[in-house]
Amino acid sequence: MWKELCVIMDRISASPDVNVIVLSSAVENIFTAGLDLNAQNELNGPAIDPARKAIQLREHILEFQNAISSLERCRQPVICALYGVSVGLAIDIASACDIRIASDKTTFGIFEVNVGLAADIGTLQRFPKIIGNDSKARELALTGRKFNSSEAKEIGFVSEIVQGGRKDVINAAVDMAKAIASKSPIAVMSTKHLLNHARDHSVEEGLKYTATWNASMLQSTDTVLAMKAVMAKQVPKFAPLSEPASIKAKAKL
Amino acid sequence: MWKELCVIMDRISASPDVNVIVLSSAVENIFTAGLDLNAQNELNGPAIDPARKAIQLREHILEFQNAISSLERCRQPVICALYGVSVGLAIDIASACDIRIASDKTTFGIFEVNVGLAADIGTLQRFPKIIGNDSKARELALTGRKFNSSEAKEIGFVSEIVQGGRKDVINAAVDMAKAIASKSPIAVMSTKHLLNHARDHSVEEGLKYTATWNASMLQSTDTVLAMKAVMAKQVPKFAPLSEPASIKAKAKL
Amino acid sequence: MWKELCVIMDRISASPDVNVIVLSSAVENIFTAGLDLNAQNELNGPAIDPARKAIQLREHILEFQNAISSLERCRQPVICALYGVSVGLAIDIASACDIRIASDKTTFGIFEVNVGLAADIGTLQRFPKIIGNDSKARELALTGRKFNSSEAKEIGFVSEIVQGGRKDVINAAVDMAKAIASKSPIAVMSTKHLLNHARDHSVEEGLKYTATWNASMLQSTDTVLAMKAVMAKQVPKFAPLSEPASIKAKAKL
Amino acid sequence: MWKELCVIMDRISASPDVNVIVLSSAVENIFTAGLDLNAQNELNGPAIDPARKAIQLREHILEFQNAISSLERCRQPVICALYGVSVGLAIDIASACDIRIASDKTTFGIFEVNVGLAADIGTLQRFPKIIGNDSKARELALTGRKFNSSEAKEIGFVSEIVQGGRKDVINAAVDMAKAIASKSPIAVMSTKHLLNHARDHSVEEGLKYTATWNASMLQSTDTVLAMKAVMAKQVPKFAPLSEPASIKAKAKL
Amino acid sequence: MWKELCVIMDRISASPDVNVIVLSSAVENIFTAGLDLNAQNELNGPAIDPARKAIQLREHILEFQNAISSLERCRQPVICALYGVSVGLAIDIASACDIRIASDKTTFGIFEVNVGLAADIGTLQRFPKIIGNDSKARELALTGRKFNSSEAKEIGFVSEIVQGGRKDVINAAVDMAKAIASKSPIAVMSTKHLLNHARDHSVEEGLKYTATWNASMLQSTDTVLAMKAVMAKQVPKFAPLSEPASIKAKAKL
Amino acid sequence: MWKELCVIMDRISASPDVNVIVLSSAVENIFTAGLDLNAQNELNGPAIDPARKAIQLREHILEFQNAISSLERCRQPVICALYGVSVGLAIDIASACDIRIASDKTTFGIFEVNVGLAADIGTLQRFPKIIGNDSKARELALTGRKFNSSEAKEIGFVSEIVQGGRKDVINAAVDMAKAIASKSPIAVMSTKHLLNHARDHSVEEGLKYTATWNASMLQSTDTVLAMKAVMAKQVPKFAPLSEPASIKAKAKL
Repeated sequence: MWKELCVIMDRISASPDVNVIVLSSAVENIFTAGLDLNAQNELNGPAIDPARKAIQLREHILEFQNAISSLERCRQPVICALYGVSVGLAIDIASACDIRIASDKTTFGIFEVNVGLAADIGTLQRFPKIIGNDSKARELALTGRKFNSSEAKEIGFVSEIVQGGRKDVINAAVDMAKAIASKSPIAVMSTKHLLNHARDHSVEEGLKYTATWNASMLQSTDTVLAMKAVMAKQVPKFAPLSEPASIKAKAKL
Repeated sequence: MWKELCVIMDRISASPDVNVIVLSSAVENIFTAGLDLNAQNELNGPAIDPARKAIQLREHILEFQNAISSLERCRQPVICALYGVSVGLAIDIASACDIRIASDKTTFGIFEVNVGLAADIGTLQRFPKIIGNDSKARELALTGRKFNSSEAKEIGFVSEIVQGGRKDVINAAVDMAKAIASKSPIAVMSTKHLLNHARDHSVEEGLKYTATWNASMLQSTDTVLAMKAVMAKQVPKFAPLSEPASIKAKAKL
Repeated sequence: MWKELCVIMDRISASPDVNVIVLSSAVENIFTAGLDLNAQNELNGPAIDPARKAIQLREHILEFQNAISSLERCRQPVICALYGVSVGLAIDIASACDIRIASDKTTFGIFEVNVGLAADIGTLQRFPKIIGNDSKARELALTGRKFNSSEAKEIGFVSEIVQGGRKDVINAAVDMAKAIASKSPIAVMSTKHLLNHARDHSVEEGLKYTATWNASMLQSTDTVLAMKAVMAKQVPKFAPLSEPASIKAKAKL
Repeated sequence: MWKELCVIMDRISASPDVNVIVLSSAVENIFTAGLDLNAQNELNGPAIDPARKAIQLREHILEFQNAISSLERCRQPVICALYGVSVGLAIDIASACDIRIASDKTTFGIFEVNVGLAADIGTLQRFPKIIGNDSKARELALTGRKFNSSEAKEIGFVSEIVQGGRKDVINAAVDMAKAIASKSPIAVMSTKHLLNHARDHSVEEGLKYTATWNASMLQSTDTVLAMKAVMAKQVPKFAPLSEPASIKAKAKL
Repeated sequence: MWKELCVIMDRISASPDVNVIVLSSAVENIFTAGLDLNAQNELNGPAIDPARKAIQLREHILEFQNAISSLERCRQPVICALYGVSVGLAIDIASACDIRIASDKTTFGIFEVNVGLAADIGTLQRFPKIIGNDSKARELALTGRKFNSSEAKEIGFVSEIVQGGRKDVINAAVDMAKAIASKSPIAVMSTKHLLNHARDHSVEEGLKYTATWNASMLQSTDTVLAMKAVMAKQVPKFAPLSEPASIKAKAKL
Repeated sequence: MWKELCVIMDRISASPDVNVIVLSSAVENIFTAGLDLNAQNELNGPAIDPARKAIQLREHILEFQNAISSLERCRQPVICALYGVSVGLAIDIASACDIRIASDKTTFGIFEVNVGLAADIGTLQRFPKIIGNDSKARELALTGRKFNSSEAKEIGFVSEIVQGGRKDVINAAVDMAKAIASKSPIAVMSTKHLLNHARDHSVEEGLKYTATWNASMLQSTDTVLAMKAVMAKQVPKFAPLSEPASIKAKAKL
């Protein structure tokens, strides 16, 4: 499943026609119910040299991390619509998204510790940097207990709680997605890119990098277009992030 | 405007007689209404080589960043009193201050995305490190929507909401400033300096740097003065941060 | 006192029989009342060369920091039970713990600025990374004012408020400790270790390190044990973190 | 060409049967003669929005960098055999290898500046960290002048000069490769991996990471095997880096 | 003196008509003879609080560092022509330049330790990263002994030794400057900028930054111009780094 | 052995009467012949859970690293006098010293790869940052071959080769030690401290830290003493690094 997620996200990221993404599950009451314990057991496999086994496990983890990180490195913002059972892998996935919205009846849980693991696909790296209560981040990761939507909202994991079920959360996410999709795709991509950079660098490094990044982005025709529209109180219409023609030209290389 | 802000802040920072700063606007209902779109358009100017243009834009951004960062590098803490319309540049400015207090009727907004830009003067670097809800930080930066005081308080952007208008917020800020100004200027400057350092370094780096910093600061006569005052339940009186005489001596060099 | 804390914590950390730690004070109404001003004065001692004095002070601070950091580097999670007067050193100590629970009648305060110091034992490094309101972190460190439990909860310093006194907070902490102690000690130690690493590194660095760390930890028999127990809905029983025999063998080296 | 290099290197890296790699060119007098100026011109392509063009160029550069970095991230050490014309891309490629050996008649040159570019595929990042004369590194990158083998040796770019041509350099490289291939593949891979890590981290970070890495690698049966062989003055025989069986098991997942 | 150096360098850096800089002294046998001990003594000045004195000294050092670093942050490469007595401050200055050429009769020396100081204007930061023998870097900084041109060349501090005196070294430096000045100013500035960035970041960070930097720089007309000239075996002629007109426009803002 | 090294070095570091250290072995022809293979085998010990074994091994490595790093963190510079067989652990030890001098008949070797290990006590972290030929650093670490004094000098590992045996190298080291011991102990300690800091930080970070460090160190009476002596062409006499009295006072705390 997560291998396909990676392929799909990387393809969407390169698509010039997509401006925002809403991520959800296909079933009503479950976002994801965590690890496939059978697959995990299989990985434990037959005994070989512990060092060679370590190399094999490490590469497996890196590959898995890479798949989940496709949500983060994707050029477009990803809004995660959460509801029902959202435990284990759900926290890894949701933490790699930009924005999280949840139904008021969602059940959350960092469940890895319950199956004898430290979470290694991103939760321990991203979750504490997203929320504003490190005491609770550690409590949740160490006890593996469930928590509900209002606790998730209080600690800052989700930015909005929606009354209702799957459909209602997705509707709210799509509304937010529309608001983002109406902005310049250059401005939106740049904002996500710079927020990701800022999280992992000092303020000074972030500012310098931003100056270099915007040295080309401020040359966009979108800036003039948007400013004129604001002054004229009109809705601007922007070109896609990359023009299909230029994509083709690149493929030829 | 922001060029003058830089000159003024750098001069205040070097002044031995200032212990705390309250930053506000001169008008009743507007802290700042964002970018001067005309100036921005002028910058777009006549077409030259995109690389040379990029160099020019980058230097312009760095200069602008440097002006706003004067609030952060200033030796004294800066309390920002916010009210009325506080959008666009207001968020960049307020995020570079130490403490933010707002009127209950303030309108906030990260508006850059609305004019086709990613914010490049500090908001994307500082705002998410100040607040405790990264989901909302991204939502606000990507949708460019307005938010009010209670949302600003809930996510941790301001530390206090004051009922009323400009005058009331400034009064509250001045009260807090007085409390800070009554402390040792060495202790206050060191606390701001070390908090800035801590934000951008690992805990271990921060601790080591603190030990080196306090190796001279603990030799201050202020420490003894303050301790004696505490034990005697009296109000201590401290010398200014740098003695005017020593300043003069330095100027001679 | 803090020298003994260091010795005790380092010994507990190496003990194979301890899975979680609850830290508290021995008296009813005081967690700790801050610095021993007499000891501090003695340190100021007779006048010597300011550079040699700086070297001496720096080593003293590093040693003190090292003692408090023993709570952080300890292999087992530490739950801090706070009540009564919890000011000055109490904030340094509590910030170096993993989880903080407080009585509803606790008095908190970053008091160093009141005695002419910038806090140098960890508060300025750890406190702002724990909570979700940097504006308030700076206000509290710069004004040295008291704050109560509900403010501590609102900014994210404590994860739970318990009605009552010392006994009630400790009971709540012990309950949480029991929940953690029932998990695999490998998973618990790894989770704490990786959370500490994540705080001080970029997400990318954290992910890579996690893959290397879990390359050996996923080979634990605990993982299989825990998974089987989960599938069989039973309570798993894990071996201690290090087997006494192996400890002895190591001592021989 | 470089896209294929990436595919090939990634495949070799995963192969359990390869212990060391010798990289060379197929022709007698040219290692590589630098950039394909036609391809570069095509990239300049038709005029579009400078911001969208920047995004397209940035992704092209990242992809190109990723291909050259396949030499560095490859699990096995890569020995680069240099001779004849080794300019432009040759320096990027050779700098991403572990060891460089050159014929005494090799012509080197950082040629990018001659075609109006700053080198962006790795030379400016890796070359100065490889050699021991930053003054010369800058001179060579800024003047774009040629330099010969003895200058390359003197500044530390190559570790050995071989009298003769292509065949002689390859022979010397193969001899060195044989020496490395006779060692434990766990020890060899670990050494390359830790040297790469050490270059980009502080000594303290490097030491901590090494301890975590070797926590599993020291459990290898290779260590015991090699030690016994040394004591018995025999040549040890090691299993491949990953057992084919385990590879298959992984593929099933 | 060094305050004027800073003003001059910052002005040259912004000048569109300067492509390379050769730095030298005005007298025959002395590049610089180190610190002005009288000025230093004056700084020691009348006794004040050691903490306030520390703040004053720290600001003095930062200002001095900033002046010397103007050579490093200058957009154009700086070639330092060294001869005669080049001790103390000479090493700080020369280390902040890009390329160093010396007369065969130059006397070098890191003299700070001889006057009871650790060098604090850049030598300890830059010198060891320039040369390829850390053992000797430490020996020279700790013993404060003199060293000659051939030792300076052997350890990698200078890239070329010129037989003769001041005039001969300057001639050689000017020849090298001419070679650099004939290249695209975009390519030259980018190369210096990226080499400075690379020194202080990991290879991975450096590569990513380079891709963002070159996303605009590769759009330069210089690249096409230079490539065409190379293919036609002609000498290209490039526009200055920033067009005077655009400079004026900027000044208006 | 290495546990005692750690205890001794930490004690010397705190001693006010030691200004420089010369490290050597007690026997004529061997500096150190590497790892104690028996001790290593014992560590492999009885089979336990691979994860628990990893924790045990990791702590063993960290402890061993800490012992060798005592040479680096020691306040005084350490000159390593090398001769005879200097392989395996000898490279780890010598790399943690400040300056290396060798007899012309020394045999060097990074031998860990020969016994199935990647060096984990410091060689892979420190050796490549000391020398100026990364190609050779990797060749030596990957082939485990011997190298002699002139190769060690050429790549920058040692700063001086002495004709003769143990006695002659030690004499040369002692001569250098005397030169260093004649300088201000504040200046010498600061120089070592800042060189260590500089190696592991960017130039900008290093400069800022230096300003904070020297803010107290420039207040030393040594600076005035040394400057007066230089001007009067006399030999200055400095107080020890810490006065015995102050040490005692500290012990009382």
